[in-house]
Amino acid sequence: MIDRTGLMVILSSPSGAGKSTLARRLMEWDAGLRFSVSATTRAPRPGEVDGVDYHFTSRAGFEQMVADGQMLEHAEVFGNLYGSPRGPVEQAMLAGRDTLFDVDWQGGQQIRASALGRHVVSIFVLPPSLPELERRLRGRGQDSDAVIAGRMEKSRSEISHWAEYDYVLVNDDLDETEARMRAILTAERLRRDRQSGLGGFVRALMAEEA
Amino acid sequence: MIDRTGLMVILSSPSGAGKSTLARRLMEWDAGLRFSVSATTRAPRPGEVDGVDYHFTSRAGFEQMVADGQMLEHAEVFGNLYGSPRGPVEQAMLAGRDTLFDVDWQGGQQIRASALGRHVVSIFVLPPSLPELERRLRGRGQDSDAVIAGRMEKSRSEISHWAEYDYVLVNDDLDETEARMRAILTAERLRRDRQSGLGGFVRALMAEEA
Repeated sequence: MIDRTGLMVILSSPSGAGKSTLARRLMEWDAGLRFSVSATTRAPRPGEVDGVDYHFTSRAGFEQMVADGQMLEHAEVFGNLYGSPRGPVEQAMLAGRDTLFDVDWQGGQQIRASALGRHVVSIFVLPPSLPELERRLRGRGQDSDAVIAGRMEKSRSEISHWAEYDYVLVNDDLDETEARMRAILTAERLRRDRQSGLGGFVRALMAEEA
Repeated sequence: MIDRTGLMVILSSPSGAGKSTLARRLMEWDAGLRFSVSATTRAPRPGEVDGVDYHFTSRAGFEQMVADGQMLEHAEVFGNLYGSPRGPVEQAMLAGRDTLFDVDWQGGQQIRASALGRHVVSIFVLPPSLPELERRLRGRGQDSDAVIAGRMEKSRSEISHWAEYDYVLVNDDLDETEARMRAILTAERLRRDRQSGLGGFVRALMAEEA
C-alpha cells in the first residue's frame, strides 16, 4: 500500500435521508475509518457516553479550544455549542486514516475553508422526494406536527446547499447508496494527488534493474 | 437516474502492465461503456476487422479528418498515422455514455488539452515492478531480446508521465485493480459537476408539496 494522507470525509444531508445509517455502515465496512466525535457544551442525556456520543465540555473549555484554533468548525444551536476538535483528525490524517464528519452545510463550509480543506471529500445525500422524507420523519413516531414542520423547513434549507458538495447521491435505496459511497472512498484514495508516497514508489520502480 | 454527460476515460500504462485485459473487463462490466476504436493508415493484418479493431483509412482521408478537427488526438508511429475520431465520442457523451480510450501519454495529453478536456478521467496503471513487467513481456514468448529491450525502454518513458493522470493504480492483482477501476468510474459518475441533470432534479424536489 502506498502512503497517503488521510481524508476528511464530510457527509451532509437533511434529517431523515439516511445519513446516520450510511455513516454507521461505512464504519462497519472500513474499520480504519474514524468517526469525528463532536464536542458540545450541552448536558449529557441518559445513556450518552462521554467520548463516544460527544466530548462533553464546559463552555469555558470549549471557547478556549475555539480561541486556540482547536476546532475545525463550530456553531451554536439552541444555546449550546457544538464543534469538531482538530487534534484527533490531524493525527488520523498523518497516519493515513480517513475521518468521517456528520455535519450540516455550515460545518461543511467551515471545514472546507480550513487550512486542511484540500483533504476534504464532501458528499451530499438527497432524499428521493420530500413527501418520502416527511414519511420517514413521521415514521420515527416521536414528534409533534409542529416539530415535523420545523424539521422539514430545516431540511429544505439544508438541501439548498447541495451544490457546495463534491458528490451528490439520491438515496432511493440504502444498499445502493452505501455501495456508491464505498466507491467514492475507494476512488478518492486512488487519486494521484492523495497518494503522497507515489513519487517515492515510482522512483524506486525506475531505479530497479529490469 | 439523473442525466449526465458521458466521460472520456483515458487508460494508459506501459505495455505488459495489464491495460488491455483491464479495458476488456471494464467493457464486460458495463455494457454502456464504449471503446474508442482508433483510425489508422496502416494496412489491416490478417483477422483484423474494419470498425472493430481499427477504422482503416487512407492517408488522405486521415489527414482531411485532422484538418477538419475530427481527431481528438493523433500521432505518427513507424510511418503510420493513428488517431481517435471525435464524432462517435461526442455522440456517446451527449447520450450520457462513457468512452474508454486506450492511448499512450501523448494521446492522453492531446485529449486532455482538447475543448472536451474537462470531461476526461485519466487513469495510469503501473506494474508492481520492472522485472515483473519484463517477465510478462517475455512470457508472451514471441519477441527477441532486442524487441523486449526496446519495449522496456518505451515502458520507462511511458511511466515517466504518471504524474499527469488523475488516478494512479499499481496492478499487483488484476481482480483488485479491476475493482478499483470500477470504483473510479462509479465515483466519477456521481460527482456533482458531472451530473448535468442534478439542478433540475433538486428544483423539482423542492417544488414538491411535502
